[in-house]
Amino acid sequence: MSLLIKQVLLNNELVDIYIEKNIFLAIKPKLSLSADTVIDGSRFAILPAFYNMHTHSAMTLMRGYADDIELHSWLEDHIWPLESKLVEEHVYHGTRLAALEMIKSGTVFFNDMYFFPYGTAKAADEMGMRADIAPVLVDGMDASRSDEMIAYAQEAIDHSNDYSSRVRFAVSPHAIYTVSADTLIKSAELARKEKLPYQIHISESKTEVKTSLKQFGLRPVQYLESLGVLGPNVTAVHCLHLDDTDRKILKERGVTIAHCPASNMKLSSGHFDYAKTKAAGIKMVVATDGACSNNNLSMLEEMKIASLREKAYSGDPTVLPAQTIYDMATVNAAKAAGLNAGRIEKGMLADCLLINLDHPTLVPSGHLISDMVYSANPECIDTVICDGNILLQNRKVKNEEEIIKCANEAYLDLIKK
Amino acid sequence: MSLLIKQVLLNNELVDIYIEKNIFLAIKPKLSLSADTVIDGSRFAILPAFYNMHTHSAMTLMRGYADDIELHSWLEDHIWPLESKLVEEHVYHGTRLAALEMIKSGTVFFNDMYFFPYGTAKAADEMGMRADIAPVLVDGMDASRSDEMIAYAQEAIDHSNDYSSRVRFAVSPHAIYTVSADTLIKSAELARKEKLPYQIHISESKTEVKTSLKQFGLRPVQYLESLGVLGPNVTAVHCLHLDDTDRKILKERGVTIAHCPASNMKLSSGHFDYAKTKAAGIKMVVATDGACSNNNLSMLEEMKIASLREKAYSGDPTVLPAQTIYDMATVNAAKAAGLNAGRIEKGMLADCLLINLDHPTLVPSGHLISDMVYSANPECIDTVICDGNILLQNRKVKNEEEIIKCANEAYLDLIKK
Repeated sequence: MSLLIKQVLLNNELVDIYIEKNIFLAIKPKLSLSADTVIDGSRFAILPAFYNMHTHSAMTLMRGYADDIELHSWLEDHIWPLESKLVEEHVYHGTRLAALEMIKSGTVFFNDMYFFPYGTAKAADEMGMRADIAPVLVDGMDASRSDEMIAYAQEAIDHSNDYSSRVRFAVSPHAIYTVSADTLIKSAELARKEKLPYQIHISESKTEVKTSLKQFGLRPVQYLESLGVLGPNVTAVHCLHLDDTDRKILKERGVTIAHCPASNMKLSSGHFDYAKTKAAGIKMVVATDGACSNNNLSMLEEMKIASLREKAYSGDPTVLPAQTIYDMATVNAAKAAGLNAGRIEKGMLADCLLINLDHPTLVPSGHLISDMVYSANPECIDTVICDGNILLQNRKVKNEEEIIKCANEAYLDLIKK
Repeated sequence: MSLLIKQVLLNNELVDIYIEKNIFLAIKPKLSLSADTVIDGSRFAILPAFYNMHTHSAMTLMRGYADDIELHSWLEDHIWPLESKLVEEHVYHGTRLAALEMIKSGTVFFNDMYFFPYGTAKAADEMGMRADIAPVLVDGMDASRSDEMIAYAQEAIDHSNDYSSRVRFAVSPHAIYTVSADTLIKSAELARKEKLPYQIHISESKTEVKTSLKQFGLRPVQYLESLGVLGPNVTAVHCLHLDDTDRKILKERGVTIAHCPASNMKLSSGHFDYAKTKAAGIKMVVATDGACSNNNLSMLEEMKIASLREKAYSGDPTVLPAQTIYDMATVNAAKAAGLNAGRIEKGMLADCLLINLDHPTLVPSGHLISDMVYSANPECIDTVICDGNILLQNRKVKNEEEIIKCANEAYLDLIKK
């Protein structure tokens, strides 16, 4: 299968781009090649697509369900009771809705942590996206459930071949306050043995840090370090309440931090210290978190909110400039996911966006990355290509109406249970 | 001219809505009326449109021109030099672009402060929007230019009848550090005499407060109070650095504060104290500021950023909930502009949005205002009606291509000058 994009704007230059199977094979001002599918790129610029390094995709079903509520009540009185009624079918329909929304806002990969991973995997696969999908491990701090947890994770990994190679199962304990030390240690060993990514929420709230100090005599990062969990395969989500020692450890272990500013702000979780994290040399990406605490999955919005929050918080309007945050949402995130992707370059995985340069938010022309970060909305994305396949064209995804209908039905089923 | 919207969702109820000329004349579950134009509302919800109480619309031409730059360099090395080359034609094309963007994101009114007001007025009128347009008064603190300033403002007011009644000229000195006391006093008198709105930037930066204390021995608000400027026709833009006395004065004088969070955050101008402003009982609206410091004119984004910023800043996830911020962007803003609008009610001006409930960001259905604030993007707005006229339908505005083309040309002309 081959795809030729003719005369598209790449870094201020018009080029032809030839994709064979799932790889950018040739990028030149003029190519004399034919292809199975040809796209006229003359109205478009081509840009890297987005890689969303932290979400709970099926939580789209809970979008708007419990907003403007205090954190503990949000979880205990609203979200957890609803989640307790979930079945795989809900997760499947919720993830299809999430994938639809992500594709329409330019995202081709998501790093998921949730219940019923087969529902998520089936949806991601059918929708043509890339995904690392981790069944969330929660043993309620009961070490006797550790083997059960690891068996649950292992089972998913053993099912990897049931899906396209775009979809991979990964390992993910929820957090240090919901998962026993035994499960944390064994799940980290499992991820290392299977060479898989590992994600965990770390230091999302002050309460987490306080409890950790009381229970383990260590701050969350230092506790995980003492258990031997941290390594280059780890994505540490949030990391709002770190000290210098925490940052030194995360740097030394090659951990990537997934910064989720919209969720952190909406839940009043605390301030991410970008300046200190950057100074410490820690790898950083930006991610949306779930739709329940955001409430959308748009990486465009996430980039803007990340940059504006940082400028406001630091008092310095020059920090986290457009290209830096764009890289955090694209090439840096792809790298963290172990993908040879995130740049429009020969030999890289054929993931990209075709941007409609005549969209009002991108006019006047000439400052595309700035406009994408500070001005654009999803409507400016005409086409999304993932792994050499066209997932969105002329703003349309296959079966949109059916996906929406099923998601609404799944929600009604969930709340009436 | 009449318009009938059939079976549209209004506050969870299906209704028929009949508009005659520019007024909602009848709203009932079933109406047996015919109309010049009939819209099938069955896929839509109807909501109030947005009223943007502070912008410099033609600055769309400078979108992305100078981002991630320190404030003084931003103004002195980039924006002011470019603005010095502006002619009316640029402002006309910049405002048409702004109007296109505003209509496509659901805004029907803008409160403008800029140069070449006739360019702005012509564009607003042609595009079918409502606008209060103030020629910005800047005398460089030279009181001898005061009469010239007032003559400039008066001339615009005298031209009001050249345009539709949707468009009105207003009075607007730029700020206390660019306009002499004489001009501030006389312009306030002019606005009162003509019964017109008056807008001015107040306390946008710490420097402004420091300079005011040094130069006038008073904080900005107290200085303006000493000049007799403040009253219920005044929109005070920004108001980031207030003390309790400032707030007491703004409350007593019935001033409305236009809060512009995206611009304040992007320029690192300081933190707006929503809690204290609310406690003081001051009227508040939310606005986008110009596209140069935002960098778009979407009130949807502004609502989300306002609410998230407040939750993060205060540490309280319950503050500035969805309905409150939606009101600040709609009915409260319309009231501040002196318009009998901002609600879908019999007798009110026929301004409204038809929202596509099948847009992924609004699914699952059932939490429309939350979804509009925290999740929606402009693409979910199918139709915009202003003053009984359809400005947007099926996401299309008349002459979009030509507006975009002319805006790009105007920008190229401006930067090559």
